[in-house]
Amino acid sequence: MSDSTSRLDEVALTFETRLMDVLAQRRKRSLSFSVPYTQLWESLERMARGGKKIRPRVLMDAYQALGGIDERVAVDAACAVELLHIALVIHDDVIDKDLMRRGEMNIAGRFASEAMLRGTARRDAHAWGEASSLLAGDLMLTLAHSLLARLEIPEDQRQAVLDIFDATVFESAAGEHYDVWLSMHLEPADSQDVLAMIDQKTAAYSFQAPLVLAAVLAGATTSLIEELTVIARQIGVIYQLRDDVLGLFGDERNTGKSVLSDLREGKETLLIDYARSDPAWSEVESLFGDDALSIADGHRLRRVIEESGALMFVESLITERCANVNQLIQEATLPTALREQLTTLTTACNSRIS
Amino acid sequence: MSDSTSRLDEVALTFETRLMDVLAQRRKRSLSFSVPYTQLWESLERMARGGKKIRPRVLMDAYQALGGIDERVAVDAACAVELLHIALVIHDDVIDKDLMRRGEMNIAGRFASEAMLRGTARRDAHAWGEASSLLAGDLMLTLAHSLLARLEIPEDQRQAVLDIFDATVFESAAGEHYDVWLSMHLEPADSQDVLAMIDQKTAAYSFQAPLVLAAVLAGATTSLIEELTVIARQIGVIYQLRDDVLGLFGDERNTGKSVLSDLREGKETLLIDYARSDPAWSEVESLFGDDALSIADGHRLRRVIEESGALMFVESLITERCANVNQLIQEATLPTALREQLTTLTTACNSRIS
Repeated sequence: MSDSTSRLDEVALTFETRLMDVLAQRRKRSLSFSVPYTQLWESLERMARGGKKIRPRVLMDAYQALGGIDERVAVDAACAVELLHIALVIHDDVIDKDLMRRGEMNIAGRFASEAMLRGTARRDAHAWGEASSLLAGDLMLTLAHSLLARLEIPEDQRQAVLDIFDATVFESAAGEHYDVWLSMHLEPADSQDVLAMIDQKTAAYSFQAPLVLAAVLAGATTSLIEELTVIARQIGVIYQLRDDVLGLFGDERNTGKSVLSDLREGKETLLIDYARSDPAWSEVESLFGDDALSIADGHRLRRVIEESGALMFVESLITERCANVNQLIQEATLPTALREQLTTLTTACNSRIS
Repeated sequence: MSDSTSRLDEVALTFETRLMDVLAQRRKRSLSFSVPYTQLWESLERMARGGKKIRPRVLMDAYQALGGIDERVAVDAACAVELLHIALVIHDDVIDKDLMRRGEMNIAGRFASEAMLRGTARRDAHAWGEASSLLAGDLMLTLAHSLLARLEIPEDQRQAVLDIFDATVFESAAGEHYDVWLSMHLEPADSQDVLAMIDQKTAAYSFQAPLVLAAVLAGATTSLIEELTVIARQIGVIYQLRDDVLGLFGDERNTGKSVLSDLREGKETLLIDYARSDPAWSEVESLFGDDALSIADGHRLRRVIEESGALMFVESLITERCANVNQLIQEATLPTALREQLTTLTTACNSRIS
């Protein structure tokens, strides 16, 4: 056990080195272009240095547990899923017009505020921040794809890897699009719709893609890949349900995110869906989605949501889903190391505080 | 000549069929997701049906002229450059906050106006249109990359093709970023800066990528690829200089674009750079970049630009550049068919009215 742990640490270090190396190469290439373009690449390096690296770790651990032996392949695929994550996070912030991420200014925020300091009007500075983010996301998406397309693997694996990447981007975009659609409230959404959106937007790229890529690259059987797909989606939904709870009731010092932001955005979650059926909701409904929601009104909204029983409902749903996924993990024909890894991952997704 | 012409028509038809087929596959897959997501794919199909298809034609013609014989490879690479063009155009409109393109509403415009018709507030509807466009661009970028990564070609060609794609996205993003930067006027820009921006933003992906991809896929020599690169960049700059002239002095019925939009945006072009040195500029300077510029003031601005000699200067620059590129084409060691093609292309870029 301690041998395999130190082996994993070593791979994690190789991963970090490779990721920063790939980005540094591009930053150096950007020196032949404009100064702001190099600053954009520096921001991307900074962003890649942070983060919890959940997705690459899931991929590399699973690859090893499934008997994969080509470290270079695992590390490059891990870099690709991390870069895809960065791309989606950046574009998600553009869509939500967020200028902060994890308690710090994001790329849009930094570029906009620097331009304002230099005297640019607020509106133009925001457009500059947004343009910078949009292009940064495009660059990360391209880089992710590029790393996967260059993996030195057999032709049939390569086709499978490209299929997974395409399907992942396709589905994440579908979930993101549906998320914005639901937040416009043009049609009534029920909890099934919200769960489907969560599943597409987060589970597909965060858990299914890393696990299935690992399995394909390690040469796993089709039936094992199918079992992993089901498990990955379930874990992804647990992860996102916890995220929604933390977004409203988490400790801002841990999450790095204001408990007002989801409420201001009018984000459709299961908590909101449940709270709507409470008579008290009608009294606070107009506050939901209000860009300028005050701290006091945010407090009021959260109290109505909590007293509706929504929090208890979602907590019990998470518990139920954890039990389900743990049963699936036990019943699946997985190597012991992978079974342990997935159980730990499920617990971590449930009990995380940030 | 008539044989090779009908052969080209046939390839063009195969290209159109393949392009629409690739998109239709995705639209069908989107049926398992939300209704608006399918509408997004329908919008992309509609967009792909239009357009002048300059880039794929350049690629396919050059491939044939250079002795390439694998039609499937040429057609898929041609689809990839067209999809990349669509991706960049969509994201360019997001960056410029444009809702129209070629006299029609673009994706952002259509999604926003439909949401407004259904009662969504203006601001939310615009955010929805913008989110839809941003995701549409991501999907097109992914699809372009995916087609190139799957070409059935020798390994060394595949690496070269992926390198070209990466470098093209890298450089187009650099040019787009620099364009937005220049329009903030935080630093004085001279004509060299503007020409460099044009070169990066347009010439790289519109002319260099199609020509160099064709050459690599047809197995051309490194020296021929280098000659083509220089020629392609020159043609790209001519194309863009003509674009800037048409943007201010073109016939709106042909260009499908208001002669006010570049002026409202504060777009830095060589015309503007030249006009700035005229004493009369100071009288109209405040109008340049004004979002709400009136038709009468637009007229005033254009007159100052024209009377400064800017239009004549840019026209003579285009003429000079055309002569230069034609000389390069004559001196390069190219097959006759390619030489003819490039000469025709240069003339078309110069004399186009739309």
